[in-house]
Amino acid sequence: MPSVLLLSCPDQQGIVAATSAFIADQGGNIIHAEQYVERPHAGTDGNDGSVFFQRIEFELARPGVTHETFLDAFQAVARQFEMLVDLHNTAVPVPTAIMASKQPHCLYDLLTRWRSGELPMDLRVVVSNHPDHRDICEHMGIPYVHLPVTKDTKPQQERQVLDALAEHGVELVVMARYMQILSDDFVSRHPMRIINIHHSFLPAFIGANPYRQAHERGVKLIGATAHYATADLDEGPIIAQETAHVTHRENVAALTARGRDIETVVLARAVRAHLEHKIAVHGHKTIVYS
Amino acid sequence: MPSVLLLSCPDQQGIVAATSAFIADQGGNIIHAEQYVERPHAGTDGNDGSVFFQRIEFELARPGVTHETFLDAFQAVARQFEMLVDLHNTAVPVPTAIMASKQPHCLYDLLTRWRSGELPMDLRVVVSNHPDHRDICEHMGIPYVHLPVTKDTKPQQERQVLDALAEHGVELVVMARYMQILSDDFVSRHPMRIINIHHSFLPAFIGANPYRQAHERGVKLIGATAHYATADLDEGPIIAQETAHVTHRENVAALTARGRDIETVVLARAVRAHLEHKIAVHGHKTIVYS
Amino acid sequence: MPSVLLLSCPDQQGIVAATSAFIADQGGNIIHAEQYVERPHAGTDGNDGSVFFQRIEFELARPGVTHETFLDAFQAVARQFEMLVDLHNTAVPVPTAIMASKQPHCLYDLLTRWRSGELPMDLRVVVSNHPDHRDICEHMGIPYVHLPVTKDTKPQQERQVLDALAEHGVELVVMARYMQILSDDFVSRHPMRIINIHHSFLPAFIGANPYRQAHERGVKLIGATAHYATADLDEGPIIAQETAHVTHRENVAALTARGRDIETVVLARAVRAHLEHKIAVHGHKTIVYS
Amino acid sequence: MPSVLLLSCPDQQGIVAATSAFIADQGGNIIHAEQYVERPHAGTDGNDGSVFFQRIEFELARPGVTHETFLDAFQAVARQFEMLVDLHNTAVPVPTAIMASKQPHCLYDLLTRWRSGELPMDLRVVVSNHPDHRDICEHMGIPYVHLPVTKDTKPQQERQVLDALAEHGVELVVMARYMQILSDDFVSRHPMRIINIHHSFLPAFIGANPYRQAHERGVKLIGATAHYATADLDEGPIIAQETAHVTHRENVAALTARGRDIETVVLARAVRAHLEHKIAVHGHKTIVYS
Repeated sequence: MPSVLLLSCPDQQGIVAATSAFIADQGGNIIHAEQYVERPHAGTDGNDGSVFFQRIEFELARPGVTHETFLDAFQAVARQFEMLVDLHNTAVPVPTAIMASKQPHCLYDLLTRWRSGELPMDLRVVVSNHPDHRDICEHMGIPYVHLPVTKDTKPQQERQVLDALAEHGVELVVMARYMQILSDDFVSRHPMRIINIHHSFLPAFIGANPYRQAHERGVKLIGATAHYATADLDEGPIIAQETAHVTHRENVAALTARGRDIETVVLARAVRAHLEHKIAVHGHKTIVYS
Repeated sequence: MPSVLLLSCPDQQGIVAATSAFIADQGGNIIHAEQYVERPHAGTDGNDGSVFFQRIEFELARPGVTHETFLDAFQAVARQFEMLVDLHNTAVPVPTAIMASKQPHCLYDLLTRWRSGELPMDLRVVVSNHPDHRDICEHMGIPYVHLPVTKDTKPQQERQVLDALAEHGVELVVMARYMQILSDDFVSRHPMRIINIHHSFLPAFIGANPYRQAHERGVKLIGATAHYATADLDEGPIIAQETAHVTHRENVAALTARGRDIETVVLARAVRAHLEHKIAVHGHKTIVYS
Repeated sequence: MPSVLLLSCPDQQGIVAATSAFIADQGGNIIHAEQYVERPHAGTDGNDGSVFFQRIEFELARPGVTHETFLDAFQAVARQFEMLVDLHNTAVPVPTAIMASKQPHCLYDLLTRWRSGELPMDLRVVVSNHPDHRDICEHMGIPYVHLPVTKDTKPQQERQVLDALAEHGVELVVMARYMQILSDDFVSRHPMRIINIHHSFLPAFIGANPYRQAHERGVKLIGATAHYATADLDEGPIIAQETAHVTHRENVAALTARGRDIETVVLARAVRAHLEHKIAVHGHKTIVYS
Repeated sequence: MPSVLLLSCPDQQGIVAATSAFIADQGGNIIHAEQYVERPHAGTDGNDGSVFFQRIEFELARPGVTHETFLDAFQAVARQFEMLVDLHNTAVPVPTAIMASKQPHCLYDLLTRWRSGELPMDLRVVVSNHPDHRDICEHMGIPYVHLPVTKDTKPQQERQVLDALAEHGVELVVMARYMQILSDDFVSRHPMRIINIHHSFLPAFIGANPYRQAHERGVKLIGATAHYATADLDEGPIIAQETAHVTHRENVAALTARGRDIETVVLARAVRAHLEHKIAVHGHKTIVYS
């Protein structure tokens, strides 16, 4: 199973050469590498403020070279270029929780993809404020934590959710149409580790009832947006978006039904990109490697 | 060449029967009919406040029945159901003006479609605040009215534009990336007779520089919206929208270039729908017949 | 719940008037009507050989008028125009069987849509040549008939399948990636009542292993096609098709995984159109009402 | 202006390290690099028969290092890895000819994109077997070579076309719906230097009248394919494809009109990829860098 190295650093000459030479020296075999330079001023080619990003997928083939020894040895390169470095072992899938409310479409889709081996996800637990999905989850052998919530019990319930996530060693939280707004505290404990699906093409129709808003405006397309949750609601870094054509014939209920298909597809796409370590976050934007 | 009847009235039983019986009585042959009922409250099936819309494409085949006699006779039906009625003769294409500024993509695309006979448009004149497109227009035999504009001369220039439109008997104005904001007075003289292309997926990124706004937000889709111009800028009834996937690699210039293709396609689609009498406006929304 | 009338007959003047007047006479309220005239020779406007199709969705509101009395009374109109007539009561969803093999994606998607009430389907039974999906089906309360098959037992197994379908009163069979080729006899017993999903954009890549064929040809799009099964394999009337962009990076396994998403969406779209009585078949082509 | 290095060689460890170290040594700054390994047997990770492809976009910044000295010095690396090497200077756009027949849509679109500076194309000449586009081409300052053709004069006409291409120093030929079949001899003189647009989603509907074939089959999508011309008609390496949804309502003429928009977009996309040196050909397939 290959390893994935995610890098970022101030742009300068020689980074690609240094990293690829290092990997070759360690007996590693590069399967795929992709880089990107964010230039703060479009059209400017100088290095002033430019940031270099790279994702390298490679195989460690030499006996004695492990992820630990590799990462230790790489520190010299990292220091030289002032890199932020993440090394992922794709043999170890990401421990993940799915949070859902009453609506099943995103949850069931992720369960099906996980069960068929399509998503490299170590699904540890499903957390919900509704009891509805217990049977299906337990049938698939996934612990189901039912934590009902009211206005009054919201802080306590959130602490219980946090406890459940911690207990199961979760590193990624997927909000599969979980209809409760998370507190800033909750979100800030999982920076870029919570993926949410918003049921509109952001930044259009921010907030509640986007399909009703879309219907009232008379748009000819509806959309969905998967993004990392941040304290600033609906302003988190966007990972994936999709739209579908609609007509005047579709009322709010029809838009909602059609939207479910888009939400499902977009959330799965974003979750897959995260699980495959293909996302880098820069400010409030994402780099999604291909 | 067929005729097109566009109707709207309060919904009630028997409208379809009455209109189709009338057309049969007049010896007309219905080629295509489509209707739609706008129900103010989704899910409510009662007639309270519901509005009926219909588009009927038919051929007048009986000697002696003309558009005039047909429309005269139809008044009885129209009165019975309190209909608003438009009858169009598709043998007479709509007298049209295109307004453009420096950017050629939408203008050239419409010219090409018009010249190849693809659009049923009686193109009377091209009006621009730039001289750039005179050669190509005159080469194609279309009068080119160059009316430069500055902040100070804006009111006078707009009057000159209105004069040019009136002189050429124009009934539809297509704003093919005309980069001047029209005054409320100008717009109110051509209700639902001015089609504009906005270079974003409305209502996202209203206002200036939408591709820069899109880049700054880090969206994964860009879009374009064709709509009727109303006094309330970018709030007019939407006719057509389209989006395209983009990646983090695309800077503002790249987004702008990709956006041009979407703008071109969406504007042409909206103009075609108008020219084929397939649009009904209801409040600030459109019904676009298929 | 509305009724749906599906008609076809030789084209002539007055059909729309006759049907809509009849419905008004019976106290019915037309919600939506759509018609289409297939002209054998494009551009010819005469009636010679043209066929008229219509779908009318209407509500029977008058006491004493039932589906039976309506249909009886309609025979006079039907005879006059030599119509083929189908009347459907949408209060009675179509008794349906799903057939699947090992792959779960289409099956689970249909189950989820059915369970959430999104599809007007009376799901009676799931038939499979594999035991894998018994748990999930029985958990949802659907009988699961496991009928393994080998080359030698194929004729007997098909008879058992037919028996199971008959026993459950099935009117629509959805082949959700059922990987056995049905005999001509089986197919001919359910004309336009078996929907199959083919994992390519037909007519490209007919036959086995279309994703391998697509990879070998180096296409930049893959697709899926939902169609009615006919004796002539992969030649049945097409109901819905969809494609997705792919790149040189995607090997056969990746194309197959991406294809699953398209298959799922296209099959659901086709099944929904059938269940909503929106499909008319004419020769080897479909009319899919909007 | 950056340079583009296109490489291919048998896959082995250390190629990325060697090329990036070489560029760093020469004082070059890598802007973007992308590689791909074609493995003949999907799922096999060994190097047996695997081919490595790379595209590196970089800037030569050191005084004294020119394209010539760079390429000379690179031979040592190339020999070591048995590389095929192409070095392109993006400051020198590709000398290009467009060939067209009567239909204007692809030709006009390319002209508009060229004129607006959107395509890095050194447009030298337009060749056509029809006189129709002379005015517009000459108006834009492009030589127009009108070479009519009949069955009898085909060989002579083709020689005249070849002469015109040679005279204008053309390196890329874009067949913008040029409706004459080129001889094997013609094609073989420009290997992977002729881009053709086929008006179907290949490999469906190979040959003449694809829109008629599509209509007869009753497909729900139509498509277009841009590919390099090879002696084996419609079998050349595919560069780009696109599809659009169609309905039963669209007759052959309507499909043809809708198809024009797809052809235009797909051809422009393929031409741009070629002009930006983003295409590598491997056997009868393309690698299109992102």
